[in-house]
Order: sequence, then C-alpha cells, then structure tokens
Amino acid sequence: MTDPPGGNGRSIRTLEWTGDALRLLNQRVLPLRESVTSITQAEGVAHAIQTMVVRGAPAIGVAAAFGLVLAVRNAIRKRLPWREEFRKAALQLRATRPTAVNLFWAIERMRKAAEKLPDEPEGAAYHLEKEAMAIYDEDVAANRRMGANGAKLLKSGSVITHCNAGALATAGYGTALGVVRAAVAAGKKMHVYVGETRPVLQGARLTAWELGKDGIPCTVMTDSMAATILQAGKAQAAIVGADRIAANGDVANKIGTYGLAVLCRAHKVPFYVAAPVSTIDPAIRTGKAIPIEERDGREVTHFLGTRIAPDAVPVINPAFDVTPAKYVTAIVTERGVIRPPFPGGIRKLFR
Amino acid sequence: MTDPPGGNGRSIRTLEWTGDALRLLNQRVLPLRESVTSITQAEGVAHAIQTMVVRGAPAIGVAAAFGLVLAVRNAIRKRLPWREEFRKAALQLRATRPTAVNLFWAIERMRKAAEKLPDEPEGAAYHLEKEAMAIYDEDVAANRRMGANGAKLLKSGSVITHCNAGALATAGYGTALGVVRAAVAAGKKMHVYVGETRPVLQGARLTAWELGKDGIPCTVMTDSMAATILQAGKAQAAIVGADRIAANGDVANKIGTYGLAVLCRAHKVPFYVAAPVSTIDPAIRTGKAIPIEERDGREVTHFLGTRIAPDAVPVINPAFDVTPAKYVTAIVTERGVIRPPFPGGIRKLFR
Repeated sequence: MTDPPGGNGRSIRTLEWTGDALRLLNQRVLPLRESVTSITQAEGVAHAIQTMVVRGAPAIGVAAAFGLVLAVRNAIRKRLPWREEFRKAALQLRATRPTAVNLFWAIERMRKAAEKLPDEPEGAAYHLEKEAMAIYDEDVAANRRMGANGAKLLKSGSVITHCNAGALATAGYGTALGVVRAAVAAGKKMHVYVGETRPVLQGARLTAWELGKDGIPCTVMTDSMAATILQAGKAQAAIVGADRIAANGDVANKIGTYGLAVLCRAHKVPFYVAAPVSTIDPAIRTGKAIPIEERDGREVTHFLGTRIAPDAVPVINPAFDVTPAKYVTAIVTERGVIRPPFPGGIRKLFR
Repeated sequence: MTDPPGGNGRSIRTLEWTGDALRLLNQRVLPLRESVTSITQAEGVAHAIQTMVVRGAPAIGVAAAFGLVLAVRNAIRKRLPWREEFRKAALQLRATRPTAVNLFWAIERMRKAAEKLPDEPEGAAYHLEKEAMAIYDEDVAANRRMGANGAKLLKSGSVITHCNAGALATAGYGTALGVVRAAVAAGKKMHVYVGETRPVLQGARLTAWELGKDGIPCTVMTDSMAATILQAGKAQAAIVGADRIAANGDVANKIGTYGLAVLCRAHKVPFYVAAPVSTIDPAIRTGKAIPIEERDGREVTHFLGTRIAPDAVPVINPAFDVTPAKYVTAIVTERGVIRPPFPGGIRKLFR
C-alpha cells in the first residue's frame, strides 16, 4: 500500500516492541544518525526517558508501559516477586520527568491492570504486555482521529510549530504534526515553519527530519524568527502539542510555546493545541499547579559538548512553560475539538 | 583610578588604533578565547565586518572609519592616488552589511572630511586619522551621556536584554549596557537576563562575558525563555540597542527584538531602546524601508561546524527585525530621552 499524501509517519519507528525488548530510535543523535537502541530492563527505559533518547509526552507514556513489562519479565528470570519488581520500576519510571502527565497516566493504567491480575507471574507478564500494546495502539489511533478532527481547522498555507509533536513524540502519526499530515491527506497544500526549539533543538533536529521523511515542505528558523513571520503575515495558524493540560485549559508545553501563543494573539493568528485526552490532567485546576522540570543548565551553556557561554555563568533552563487558556484558540483531541470556555468542554470529556 | 561600580567597559578593548593598524578583539571566538586581530588594510576591515570579527552598529562605523585611513596609508605606500583608493575602500566597506546605518554614517562623514582636504597625501592621511579618532572618541562620550540619560529610567531590579549592545558593540561603554552600567554606578542594584540571541549567540557569548568582566550579575537564557521571565514578573524593563531607527521611531535591531517588544507590551513592561543619534536615519520614513540583511543559512543549520538540521532543509536567516514605534516606550540618545510620539522628537534632533 502506498502512503497517502502527507505520509502516515509509518516509516518513522519511534518505539518498537519486539516481544523481548523495547527498541527506541535514539532521538539524541537525529538527524545526523538514525540509530536504534534496544532495551531489556526497566532501568534502561527510565534512563532513556531521562536522557531524551525517547521524548514527547505520549511517547514516554508508551515507553514507560513497556518498561513495566520488562520489569515483570526480569522478575520471572531472576525468580523475584513480580509485584515488588513492578512497584520498584514504577517508582523509578515516575521519577524520570515531572511535567508530561502521560507518563503518570500510563504507569497508573498499568498499575490498575496489574492489581486485577493473579499472582502467577507468566500470566501477569502476558496480560501486562497486552495492556502496554493496547496503550501503544490506542495512541496511534487517537492521533489519527485527532488528525481528522484538527485538519478541518487548517487551510492551505503555512503553519508555525514549535518543538516536535509528531510521530517521534508519540507511538506514531503525531499530535500537532498528525493534524498537518491529515490536512495534507485531505488535499490541502501545507507548509510548516519549524522553530528550532532551543535548547535541545527538537524542531531543527526532529520535526524538520520527520516532515522531510513524509515530503511535507518546511522551513527551519530560530525561535526568535516566529515574530517576524507572523508580522509579515506568512503564517495562518500555529499548532503545537502539549505535555499537560489543566482542567481550565492552561497548557504546559515546551519552553517557548507561551511566547509563541502571545505573539499569535498579537497578530490575530489562531493558536491550536493538539493532544490526546491522556494529556489532560483533570486533577490539576490551573497551569500554576503543573510542575515544571528544570533541566541541566549545560543544555543552554554548552553545544555539542563545547561551551558557548562564559564559564560558570548563571543560567535558567525550564524545559516547559505554561500558556494560559485565554491564548488557546482550540484544543484538538481524539474525541473532538474543544473551544473556549475550556473548563466545561474538558469536564465533559471526563464524564 | 579604580573603576566605578558597574565598571566602565574600559577593560574591554573592542577596537584599538595603534597609529598603523586597527586591532580588533575577535568577537567570533569569545568567550572561549580572547584573541586580537591586527589589520593594516581596508580589505581586512571589510572582511572583519562581514564575518563579524567586529559587530554592533556603532563599532562597525568606527571600524570602517579606520579602514578608510588604512586605505589612504596604503595609497601613500604604493604611490597610488589616495582619493581613488579612498573611494574604492568606501565602496567595499559600504557593501559589507546593509542594515546598521552607523556604517554608512561614518563612511559619509569621512567622505565629507576628505572632500575638503588638499591633494597632498600625507596631510590628508593625518587629517583623516584625526577624523576617525574623533568618531571613536565621540562614540564613547555619546555612550556615557546616553548612560546618564537612561539610568534614570531603570529601578533596582532585573532588566532583559537581547544581543550585545555593550562595550563590544561600540567604541566603549555601550548603549543599552552603558545605561545598565550607569544605573549601577548610580547605586542601583541591577541584574540582567541575557537572551542568548540565536543564531550567532551574541547574548550568551558576548553580553554575558562583558557583564562578567564588570561584575554586573546576569543570567543567561534561551531567547524563548524571556516570555516566562516576563510572565513571572521577574523583569521590570527590557533594554536593547538598535541598528537603524527610522524617522517615525521604528527600530531595526537583532532578530528577536520585535518578539521581545511584543511580549513586553503584553506584560506591561517598558521596552527601551538605547542608541546614538548616528543610528537614527532621518531619510528613512518608516521601518518598512530599512534593508534587512539575510545571512548565510548555515548560521542556523550548523553549530560550530556541525550540522544540527537535516541536510539541505530550507531555512531563513534574517539578521534583524523591525519593531514598530508603538512598542517602544522610549529611545535613549546622548541628547536626551525621546518619548512618543517619536516623529516630533526625532525631527528636533536633526534641526
């Protein structure tokens, strides 16, 4: 079967479960190298999430689920009590990154599944593997529905995106880039302005690579050029993913998202967020309560191992920011497009 | 004499005229190396401007003036007609960078001085050297007056700056950073949030280094973090330099300035521009007519020689953007602080 126009991100294997191991496309070294890491221990999955071998809110949720399967498999091999190993692995995986809620959502879903299982380890491993595969499959399916729902919002033209909310950030197809893919598949002529996304450059390194794979035209720019593109009327919308959405519609996403949202408002350009329902955290009332990960300052002061700032200069490196709901035009989910006022629309999803 | 608190940028020798050569602190390799390049030909000065060994609107004007002196010196050495060599060098220097008007202003001032000189070459060289030294000295003096004028606008606290508008961008003391230096000298407790300023990183590399030299506390951040700092109420003002100011007050400055100005407005934080009168181009009615330099895309796609984006991906790299006057709270010049409406205030300066 030929791929539809816009591609389906199927050529991009972000995560692959072999039955014995989780294979991850190493996102630290893209686009220079396409290297796959095979992981057989929960610790290895935790390390891969922490060091961003795998990143993107939905993708790290899926990776964590398979990490728990690996923990139970290792318990069987070492004749250890599987529930205890599962619990330890869950703790370790939870401690990797604080902001994206999908991680906690996936671990919690696996924990609930585990609770109902008998103590017999082989059967438990079998059922937990099925649950992790369901999380994987449901993520791809959710992204495709999100794409169909969101494509209607986009007209032929250019959109700005930030970071990577594509196949590389999910089990496949992508959230924000899934919407772009679906718009292309629907016959629209799309072009994407890709903010490079300092400090880790997920835009320049990952989004540009992924769009290139699927033949969707894009232009890379520094994050500070988005304002100029908007000023010149060269982009008709912005669309980004999310790491956690509060009950009131506030959106935590990659650092730089909030500034882009304010700029879109100033230029009367719609600002869309695409995320699965698993990214919404109904327990968090507003964005102020979302924990924001502060990462190693060397991500800012060093570049490919070389120092770019004066030695020992103070630095900040929040990995995410919070965009207040008032700057969000619509949230695209697999269950439909939510418009302001968001609290009601979000409550409905969880009824 | 001990330096006043806040320093005077005197330890930073951006440009130094030895009588035979122009010595430039190589801004391409700061802060990793403090290396000085000695230049004895106008071509060498043009190359240094183009490749950003020396950068910053006032500094490249001063460098060009000395480049013209070097052209006449070489004409004498080679027994060539000095006016012809002067003219050729002026053309070459004018072609280096299109946006900063100080370059054209300094070349024009030297040309006018040359017009009045006798044909005798040694005398011409002597007088042109005096003119270039006057441009240098006046720039430092203007920056000090600008500092005194602007310091009153700042309260103790944090300011955001973008790019480098300091001693490194001028003959000394700096424009935006001169204002910060003067505020510190006046006893205010200042801290500077330094946007790294992609793609060439003048903020992380140069501004952080320069502030460190003078003991002014600063914090480096990616450009996309300014929005978060403003959202958190952590900065009380932003202050930047300028490469060209139109008659209506529109300001061309380093790419990223416009976005910062919009963000300041959204957060009700004053946005100040500090620039000498030589940066104002009364012949340009609005910012739309300011030529914006598009630099090599490899500044965006490559980092220290290593590719960071997919091979051959399209890229934009405008070096400057234009901030409409309506986003500018005040323009600090050596002849006073101009407030909106700017056209009248600017006209007065040129009367």
